[in-house]
Amino acid sequence: MEEIRLIEVKEEILSDNIKQAEEVRERLRKTKTMLLNLMSSPGSGKTSLILQTIEGLGGDLRLGVIEADIESTVDAEKVAARGIRAIQLRTGGFCHLDAAMVTQGIDAMDVSELDLVIIENVGNLVCPAEFDTGAYKNVMILSVPEGDDKPLKYPLMFSVCDLLLVNKIDYLSLSDFDMAALRKRVLALNPRIIILEVSCKTGAGIESWIDWLKAEVAAFKHLK
Amino acid sequence: MEEIRLIEVKEEILSDNIKQAEEVRERLRKTKTMLLNLMSSPGSGKTSLILQTIEGLGGDLRLGVIEADIESTVDAEKVAARGIRAIQLRTGGFCHLDAAMVTQGIDAMDVSELDLVIIENVGNLVCPAEFDTGAYKNVMILSVPEGDDKPLKYPLMFSVCDLLLVNKIDYLSLSDFDMAALRKRVLALNPRIIILEVSCKTGAGIESWIDWLKAEVAAFKHLK
Repeated sequence: MEEIRLIEVKEEILSDNIKQAEEVRERLRKTKTMLLNLMSSPGSGKTSLILQTIEGLGGDLRLGVIEADIESTVDAEKVAARGIRAIQLRTGGFCHLDAAMVTQGIDAMDVSELDLVIIENVGNLVCPAEFDTGAYKNVMILSVPEGDDKPLKYPLMFSVCDLLLVNKIDYLSLSDFDMAALRKRVLALNPRIIILEVSCKTGAGIESWIDWLKAEVAAFKHLK
Repeated sequence: MEEIRLIEVKEEILSDNIKQAEEVRERLRKTKTMLLNLMSSPGSGKTSLILQTIEGLGGDLRLGVIEADIESTVDAEKVAARGIRAIQLRTGGFCHLDAAMVTQGIDAMDVSELDLVIIENVGNLVCPAEFDTGAYKNVMILSVPEGDDKPLKYPLMFSVCDLLLVNKIDYLSLSDFDMAALRKRVLALNPRIIILEVSCKTGAGIESWIDWLKAEVAAFKHLK
């Protein structure tokens, strides 16, 4: 076995984002609008989950969606086609959303009329984990084909989330994905995270997700 | 259908990376070392491809690997266990490699003894596409479970690559992935890209990848 050489490379990270995020949170506490930040790799199923959520809620909550996309408006079109208010943030070269961008999204919606706003962040397991968007809850998706080792590679993302949806469980039969190993790795990073197994394709597990979402929105409404 | 609001958010992009990338290219032209930059989403199979490549080459080329990882050294350990020279660049919060970081990696290897150096970039379809690493060839992996719509969402990545490996074709039977639609979308962005279908799990298609790699290294050696 060859020796491994380790070199540290570093970057400065913006810090005034924290203040902006706090402003977003304060504003949405007043309007009783719960902001949820949805993150994952590209192709893990963020848009599919949002479409399943719209169907699962069946109009029980007044929902808005902020879509972040580098170039296209494909996702926002899918959401808007279901009659849901959709804001498209076209991020150009940007690899994540920050609180200032989310503020622009909120400014463009009448949030006082909404119970829940879901942000579909840029597909990326790295940068979005570092930037507080002002969301009340962070949710991430990991899909089965990405592998059970991802908590070892992208620990920050797993650490900053309140809930992990393990999506594409319909692929488990073809995969060597070890759910018990995944759970152990995730919980070692974040003991309080909730882990739900779902398939946005078959609808399996979506009911538990909807239940969690409704309970969280209800609890949020009672916050002083 | 609700109206979609579109908001442009922008970021400054570093520009002196271009000069540094040119220095890397000039240096490796002299040592006749072909540098290949491998990019994909998290969990698409970059490390698996490198391990298959080591096996497929069977010692025919003198290979080195530069692994970029945010926190762990898991991948570099797997490569080094096969007797291949591996440099681990621990990138901290960084979401991509730039030419300066690659220079640090090359400095830590004796590149004059190597025919080929493969960079495993950070798992990310966004930022790595924007930063020239100084590589002679850019290769990306898209895995079947990520979906055939990814060229619409991450067009720059598909535009900057010389070769696309469509990995995890063993999942095609469970998927609604449309290979013809994918090819059409990719070629619309980048008509000269080569597209190979592979499975790092079953080994399907790996021979074509190894053939391409050997031919490119041979051609590179003949460059003046």
